[in-house]
Amino acid sequence: MTSSAASELPGIGDVRAAAARLAGRIVATPLLESPLLNARLGLRLLVKAETLQRTGSFKFRGAMNALLQFDEGQRRTGVVAFSSGNHAQGVAAAAQLLGIPAVIVMPADAPAIKVANTRGYGAEVVLYDRWRESREAIGARIAAERGASLVPPFDDVRIIAGQGTAGLEIAAQAKALGAHLDALVVPVSGGGLVTGCALALAAESPGTKVYTAEPEAADDWRRSLAGGERLANDPAARSICDALLAPMPGEITFALGQRLLAGGFAVSDAEVLYAIAVAFADLKLVVEPGGAAALAAVLAGKLDTQGKTVAVIASGGNVDREVFARAIAVE
Amino acid sequence: MTSSAASELPGIGDVRAAAARLAGRIVATPLLESPLLNARLGLRLLVKAETLQRTGSFKFRGAMNALLQFDEGQRRTGVVAFSSGNHAQGVAAAAQLLGIPAVIVMPADAPAIKVANTRGYGAEVVLYDRWRESREAIGARIAAERGASLVPPFDDVRIIAGQGTAGLEIAAQAKALGAHLDALVVPVSGGGLVTGCALALAAESPGTKVYTAEPEAADDWRRSLAGGERLANDPAARSICDALLAPMPGEITFALGQRLLAGGFAVSDAEVLYAIAVAFADLKLVVEPGGAAALAAVLAGKLDTQGKTVAVIASGGNVDREVFARAIAVE
Repeated sequence: MTSSAASELPGIGDVRAAAARLAGRIVATPLLESPLLNARLGLRLLVKAETLQRTGSFKFRGAMNALLQFDEGQRRTGVVAFSSGNHAQGVAAAAQLLGIPAVIVMPADAPAIKVANTRGYGAEVVLYDRWRESREAIGARIAAERGASLVPPFDDVRIIAGQGTAGLEIAAQAKALGAHLDALVVPVSGGGLVTGCALALAAESPGTKVYTAEPEAADDWRRSLAGGERLANDPAARSICDALLAPMPGEITFALGQRLLAGGFAVSDAEVLYAIAVAFADLKLVVEPGGAAALAAVLAGKLDTQGKTVAVIASGGNVDREVFARAIAVE
Repeated sequence: MTSSAASELPGIGDVRAAAARLAGRIVATPLLESPLLNARLGLRLLVKAETLQRTGSFKFRGAMNALLQFDEGQRRTGVVAFSSGNHAQGVAAAAQLLGIPAVIVMPADAPAIKVANTRGYGAEVVLYDRWRESREAIGARIAAERGASLVPPFDDVRIIAGQGTAGLEIAAQAKALGAHLDALVVPVSGGGLVTGCALALAAESPGTKVYTAEPEAADDWRRSLAGGERLANDPAARSICDALLAPMPGEITFALGQRLLAGGFAVSDAEVLYAIAVAFADLKLVVEPGGAAALAAVLAGKLDTQGKTVAVIASGGNVDREVFARAIAVE
């Protein structure tokens, strides 16, 4: 982390400005709980249902916050983004609502439904071979050729601030429920959501510890937070949590994370499938594997929750029916 | 309908009073939409996610509204209710929160999970043989023996007013989305939810037509509204929509329905299964068969929706995993 990058770290003011900018444009997703589940677990569990956000994940918040700050020239030349999943849909949907042309660079082997959905939001999709081509290079070339502006998936002040609006909502909703949050656990990939929310809670719910949750096979955040430096995942890592496979923490997000996060947890694929089944049965939520990692960490007892009040973010719901059917057959 | 019953019909004042009484005690469930689904269907579809209400269905609203009006003596002697499903859980959960003893009369062949959940909310469960005993008689006997107060599932001013708070929320949420509702379609069994919501919309969204949706095999509301008198279902009727099999419209609810409803639609089991799959894929909601009847009516083209704005209530999410897995395998 260089000092120049440190000076660009977002603060609570950025998150508050994002909330004002996004008001009326995002779904204020509910913070849900199940008394029966609470009784079984011996804690008070509050679940932020970002599965119900526009495009089925929290990614819409950051994308919309970034695009709303485009100037007139940027709005005309458009946006370019690379993503195989939820960020693609978030950027495409936000761009469509604002009338901004969007190019999304996606791997040629991305699920057909994700490519179709991204096109459904009016974006131009450029496919690339993920084994032979660099999506960063393709994105940079398109940006240069068209004068389009790149919106990165996480390591960006606008994105972090936008995702942090979920944290402001959690703090306000917990207060309205009369709950004092001991901890918040957040699925992590690049780290935009968890660090944005940590900024929000540091201001609005001081004393709440914020943790990351990620797959055992790609536990870069847990190791990086413990080791004090950014560590990478094995590029060959595989997990059912397809949305949580970023290669390593971002520069900005890790700098924030070191200051604001209490630690990280890693969960197995089996623990994630069980969490999907519990979300189905007890919360009536459709959660994708990566989106269920934080719930999985709590259910699997990774942190001491006895008698405590813990919030988790269910961060996305874009799951194939085969995976979902397999998960709900588990319990 | 006798004139004495007519004089007891609830009005918008009862719904507004219920909303004030329930504030902070119910989940203000979101009104969701999917731009991709809207584009596919050629309409603007708004889905009220009562699946996310406490206990997984709208029933909690009416039950809580009734119990909050108990006097001190009633609170001490407790509540009795009969139900095989969502009303049981709604009454049990509301009673537990208020510290009121609850007895729920349930059929001995009710799904084990529903009996367990009702007990999980602290209620005493009395099982009866639905082929040889009358639940009304058992409920009346328990009420007489213990001095407990019966809370009926739908034909009751407190229940109708409580369910109507969902309609007030829909009207306010649609306004906030800049939407003028052409129609609202609501799953119907006894009629508490649809008539309560019709009261709310007549006041807050005049011009919005309100329709019922129910299974083809138990289409008493459609026939009764068309015929101008309360008509019963075949007692042998079977449908995947287990929550929508009340024998006929209620007295109070039908008197309201005749004044306020535009008509009714009937849907097949296959149409319901398809609606569950769409709610899963496009809205990330877990909806039970009965809860999906209104969405099914819209998806199956039962009403003219081209270019219109239509709201539906997804009224409950308490579905067995086998049924759900079958539904999402359909699409």
